[in-house]
Amino acid sequence: MHIFYEPNIPSKIIALNELESKHCIKVLRLNIKDEILIIDGIGGLHTAKIIDNNPKKCIVEIIQTRDKYNKRDYYLHIAIAPTKSIDRFELFLEKSTEIGIDEITPIFCSRSERKILKPDRLNKVIQSAMKQATVTYFPILNDLTNIKKFVAETTNYDFKFIAHCEENKKLYLHDFEIKNKKCLIIIGPEGDFTGDEINLAKENDFIEISLSNNILRTETAGIVACNTISIINQ
Amino acid sequence: MHIFYEPNIPSKIIALNELESKHCIKVLRLNIKDEILIIDGIGGLHTAKIIDNNPKKCIVEIIQTRDKYNKRDYYLHIAIAPTKSIDRFELFLEKSTEIGIDEITPIFCSRSERKILKPDRLNKVIQSAMKQATVTYFPILNDLTNIKKFVAETTNYDFKFIAHCEENKKLYLHDFEIKNKKCLIIIGPEGDFTGDEINLAKENDFIEISLSNNILRTETAGIVACNTISIINQ
Repeated sequence: MHIFYEPNIPSKIIALNELESKHCIKVLRLNIKDEILIIDGIGGLHTAKIIDNNPKKCIVEIIQTRDKYNKRDYYLHIAIAPTKSIDRFELFLEKSTEIGIDEITPIFCSRSERKILKPDRLNKVIQSAMKQATVTYFPILNDLTNIKKFVAETTNYDFKFIAHCEENKKLYLHDFEIKNKKCLIIIGPEGDFTGDEINLAKENDFIEISLSNNILRTETAGIVACNTISIINQ
Repeated sequence: MHIFYEPNIPSKIIALNELESKHCIKVLRLNIKDEILIIDGIGGLHTAKIIDNNPKKCIVEIIQTRDKYNKRDYYLHIAIAPTKSIDRFELFLEKSTEIGIDEITPIFCSRSERKILKPDRLNKVIQSAMKQATVTYFPILNDLTNIKKFVAETTNYDFKFIAHCEENKKLYLHDFEIKNKKCLIIIGPEGDFTGDEINLAKENDFIEISLSNNILRTETAGIVACNTISIINQ
């Protein structure tokens, strides 16, 4: 069944927004009595029937609602330096949403090359991945934040990790007992974190970890971190 | 240090090919006495010094060689249906090469939408990912093969897995004792394997597995499978 996104479901009869209405009626050529799935971004998966095929304002009736659909028992926040090529950052957003993530903070580091992000566009990438994978909770995408401020001010996690490429005796993320925990992982830019940034993170209780034997690109490191946490929680 | 690829290293003094010579001298503006790294695709990581800066035929002297660099203790073969959008298949090739894979077979299934591949282009994607992640073994990219023929004829693996989306009691890949093993994982097209294909795989000793609680895109499933095997072997 085709999946749509509608964050506002106050009653049993609702209208899809203009974009989703057009996609539903014009592109997919669905019609009255056809059934669709709607995700609401806060855990609900709704089955709905089309009752008015207006291509600008498609009206549907909710016939079944599943709450807390596929709710995870862990919380994962990844703070990651956006890549120079925005395609690669969007790839991270898409794949981490598919695999499972709760919160993303783009961080600005000494060696970052990208200072500007377009949150609207990035949230569309997330929304599209949600529909693809029937993800019902909309991951939080925070504003671009300076790494030093972020590291110093972020508290309330069971585990805080920093993944970097400097050679020293690091443990693998996979070796930690972090099932059903609230974890934060920070991942640096192309060119990695500076020594100062790593030290500041360590002073703020971040644990240094390795994600792989190979040197991974930033966006690959993000996907691998997300999948590692997902596997630990299977 | 910048990394180049040269599969043919018969002596201490070698010439880079025309493409790599241009990249080295024209693009990166390296010069005589500068040092570079060369991967040979069969496990060697060579440090070399430029002794002639000819932009069409750059000559270098090998000053150090590390054999079996980052050699893995496992063997991973993923057979996967190429996606309709070739970008997504290339993404799988790039990320699996970065994370670690030995052999890839594109498979043609009942529900496959892509019948044609350009191996030269795909091998360039792999080569580029190898340089990025200092991967010294060139993964084998086989020809596009019919799923039924492939499943019936492929033997000599410790474990053969089929990842599909049909709902039944499947185990997670992560739960198998497959450290240091030779594994084959097959992943279906958009729209999944057919029931017939799954049954044929089961008759040929493939074990049904799940990779995630979410429904993953084909290329995401490939990346997740690759990373799961990598984590098990850490």
